[in-house]
Amino acid sequence: MIVAAVFVVGAFGFYFQAAQPSVETDSAASERVGQAEVNLSDEELLEKFEKALSIIHEQYVDEITEQQLYEGAIEGMLRTLDDPYSVYMDQETATQFVESLGSHFEGIGAEVSMTDGKVTIVAPFRESPAEKAGLQPNDKIIEIDGESIEGLSLYEAVLQIRGEKGTTVRLTIERAGQNELFEIPVERGVIPIETVRADIIERDGHKLGLLEITSFSEDTADRFKEQLEELESEGIDGLLIDVRGNPGGYLNAVEDIGKLLIPGGTPIVQIENRQGEKIRYMSNLDERKPYPIIGLTDRASASASEILSAALIEGGGYDVVGEQTFGKGTVQQTIQLGDGSELKLSLFRWLTSAGNDINGEGVMPTVEVKQPDYFYTAPLSIGDEGALRLDMMSDQIRNAQTMLKGIGYEPGRVDGYFNEQTKQAVTAFQRANDLNATGEIDEETASMIQQRTVDSVREQENDLQLQTAIKLMLEQINE
Amino acid sequence: MIVAAVFVVGAFGFYFQAAQPSVETDSAASERVGQAEVNLSDEELLEKFEKALSIIHEQYVDEITEQQLYEGAIEGMLRTLDDPYSVYMDQETATQFVESLGSHFEGIGAEVSMTDGKVTIVAPFRESPAEKAGLQPNDKIIEIDGESIEGLSLYEAVLQIRGEKGTTVRLTIERAGQNELFEIPVERGVIPIETVRADIIERDGHKLGLLEITSFSEDTADRFKEQLEELESEGIDGLLIDVRGNPGGYLNAVEDIGKLLIPGGTPIVQIENRQGEKIRYMSNLDERKPYPIIGLTDRASASASEILSAALIEGGGYDVVGEQTFGKGTVQQTIQLGDGSELKLSLFRWLTSAGNDINGEGVMPTVEVKQPDYFYTAPLSIGDEGALRLDMMSDQIRNAQTMLKGIGYEPGRVDGYFNEQTKQAVTAFQRANDLNATGEIDEETASMIQQRTVDSVREQENDLQLQTAIKLMLEQINE
Repeated sequence: MIVAAVFVVGAFGFYFQAAQPSVETDSAASERVGQAEVNLSDEELLEKFEKALSIIHEQYVDEITEQQLYEGAIEGMLRTLDDPYSVYMDQETATQFVESLGSHFEGIGAEVSMTDGKVTIVAPFRESPAEKAGLQPNDKIIEIDGESIEGLSLYEAVLQIRGEKGTTVRLTIERAGQNELFEIPVERGVIPIETVRADIIERDGHKLGLLEITSFSEDTADRFKEQLEELESEGIDGLLIDVRGNPGGYLNAVEDIGKLLIPGGTPIVQIENRQGEKIRYMSNLDERKPYPIIGLTDRASASASEILSAALIEGGGYDVVGEQTFGKGTVQQTIQLGDGSELKLSLFRWLTSAGNDINGEGVMPTVEVKQPDYFYTAPLSIGDEGALRLDMMSDQIRNAQTMLKGIGYEPGRVDGYFNEQTKQAVTAFQRANDLNATGEIDEETASMIQQRTVDSVREQENDLQLQTAIKLMLEQINE
Repeated sequence: MIVAAVFVVGAFGFYFQAAQPSVETDSAASERVGQAEVNLSDEELLEKFEKALSIIHEQYVDEITEQQLYEGAIEGMLRTLDDPYSVYMDQETATQFVESLGSHFEGIGAEVSMTDGKVTIVAPFRESPAEKAGLQPNDKIIEIDGESIEGLSLYEAVLQIRGEKGTTVRLTIERAGQNELFEIPVERGVIPIETVRADIIERDGHKLGLLEITSFSEDTADRFKEQLEELESEGIDGLLIDVRGNPGGYLNAVEDIGKLLIPGGTPIVQIENRQGEKIRYMSNLDERKPYPIIGLTDRASASASEILSAALIEGGGYDVVGEQTFGKGTVQQTIQLGDGSELKLSLFRWLTSAGNDINGEGVMPTVEVKQPDYFYTAPLSIGDEGALRLDMMSDQIRNAQTMLKGIGYEPGRVDGYFNEQTKQAVTAFQRANDLNATGEIDEETASMIQQRTVDSVREQENDLQLQTAIKLMLEQINE
């Protein structure tokens, strides 16, 4: 409302109040103006805290436990640090966090996402219980063990799907092209979390090894070593290390991987505490690798991924291709509080091999390359307003235009306005995919555009960053 | 990115990690899985808290004071209540909050807003220092006392403009139509905060009193009584009470106002603590007012405004015209913590005159009326992309279309797509306002559209809620 977007000079508080309206009794209103600042001793601070705690515990309008207040207090101390990486974890969260850094979990083995408010299978893992049971990409999970999961968060649904190895979970599935819901029972198993994936790319008579690291968990360094040895035994001429989308993990995992790649006598990373005391983690690799190495990074490469990228550039003199990394330059340590709960607290700053602080800045690749625009689009969905068509405009249309352009159907514009040329692009797409050629994006067409986009994004040949790295590597091999 | 919008069933933590990437040492990683839940006594909880506090204080990667940690802890306890009205205020905030509920402040007396990143005068108060010094609506403040205020928040700028009565602040002004900046010195004065404004509307030979209450502060009830007596001495035939945009204030202010309006023996409001103990605030008015009373509310009418609205409907049997109110049904009390800081804590639930809890729901007027759409538009601004014109689309265009339609220039559509008819509407607007008739919305045209819209919003005849209330009142007078 126009008239509400104003502030009274000198009476700001009224509009602070507008956001937090309040009915006040005025008993205490006149005592305190002009009171001098008081500096409290540590003891007085604790007293003040305990006073606040007991007032809230005894007088707040709703019941509240002391446990809840103390946990809130610990979280509040951490929040005041303004450090997103320093967190308190109660028992339950702590246990889950450990599992997430472990090397396996028990469940069905599928990627899921929340799409249009429904828990949707993105893809079952290869040879997982989910795949064996016949779950397919885009299946929507409507019920778990006969109970509707409407209203559950993705996280809550995932917790229900998970469970002990050998037990069975019944999933009620909605599948495009099927008129009725149907049930699929899935026997849960042990699902390995593969944090290292190896591949060989043959190009121009050369064998290029590709090691993709998806996170740095407990056994990542061991798996990396195994896979690297296997690639070397196959006689690779170069090695690509892909840490795109890798959010980090354990410091010693990246240290151990660094020792396999960075020439000895060079620091892989340095860490520094509040007092400025430094520890250097040195590489002890005997000989420089006889083949070129190139890293791959993007904006989601964080933390341990950044350590590795910087070490490749500064410690190894290698190239890194892709995008500027996330910029997380601190190291956390987990500290037990005795009752199963934990503090994860930032205790150190880490510096790159050459001693640079990348916090908030990230590591700049030696060769900067973005992916094509359609790699960055949000999932396409058709809302309650029905099909997208001529002369309409919305973010979803912009999305669809970017996707269509990406997969080879020129929509004329990519700003969200559905013009005649967009209609022609949609019609052409529909013809090519055996859909009714209406020129309108209904649910079926949207789902197909989405599917074709995902297919296209997953093809190595469309991965501009990877292709740039391969080209650079071939140049280095031929030098 | 498409490939990032996925969750691994059972490995949720990885994506939790994606938002909070972390480098971990693994020293503590394997000890705790399966640890039994521990229930701590109050003493053990305090010990755990003190342990966390000392670890953070001594080991966190940056320096942090105990004072900061304790304040964070208190704020954290309040946050866990999930109650936006329970807040901790340190000394400085507490002082400002008291000022905001006082009856005056020292400054220049002008409404300001942040528009396009610049502090802009919305309007000087009548007969204020700002008006006397020649400040005009839409003046942009570039410097204060010769110092650029670029980068300051509105709040910070306001604090610099404020100051003791008798002192002078020099404002460097940018004004549309002037090529150069110029300076205006303003001598600060005492600016009364008028929380009650009276007006008489003459219609069909009847005098209708209008009392607008902008908040319920210390002297609001006294001012209301004075103005009501004056209106009555003028012989009004009916009374409109406008609490639109009123965020609330002191409970006793609304109680005292209720006693002037609601027939005696009826509760104005009831408050209830956690134990269910109730206090009723009864009206003691001798006689029902001899004229009809109608209230006016909107979505920003909160707290004390809602008490008054509900009391009018339920306690007085009067009509209320406008929109469903905000829905804040708790009462806070301010509790001193001894060092100038305070807890503002929700201690009571309030119930309406008839005993209804409106928290989260608000009070429904007896006659529901919204304002015309253009009353709700955001300020119009032209960004770096330059003038808005044919075939473009954006939120700003939607905004401009809604405004043009509101002030009588039909733009054909109001969805943000600039079509031929929108161009014609812009051209007509430009001709009528002596602007270059380009059919494009450049900065000058945008500013004029905005100005005409504000003018229109401020005219009583366009205030659909007020006009509906007046019509209803005339019917009641003539019954």
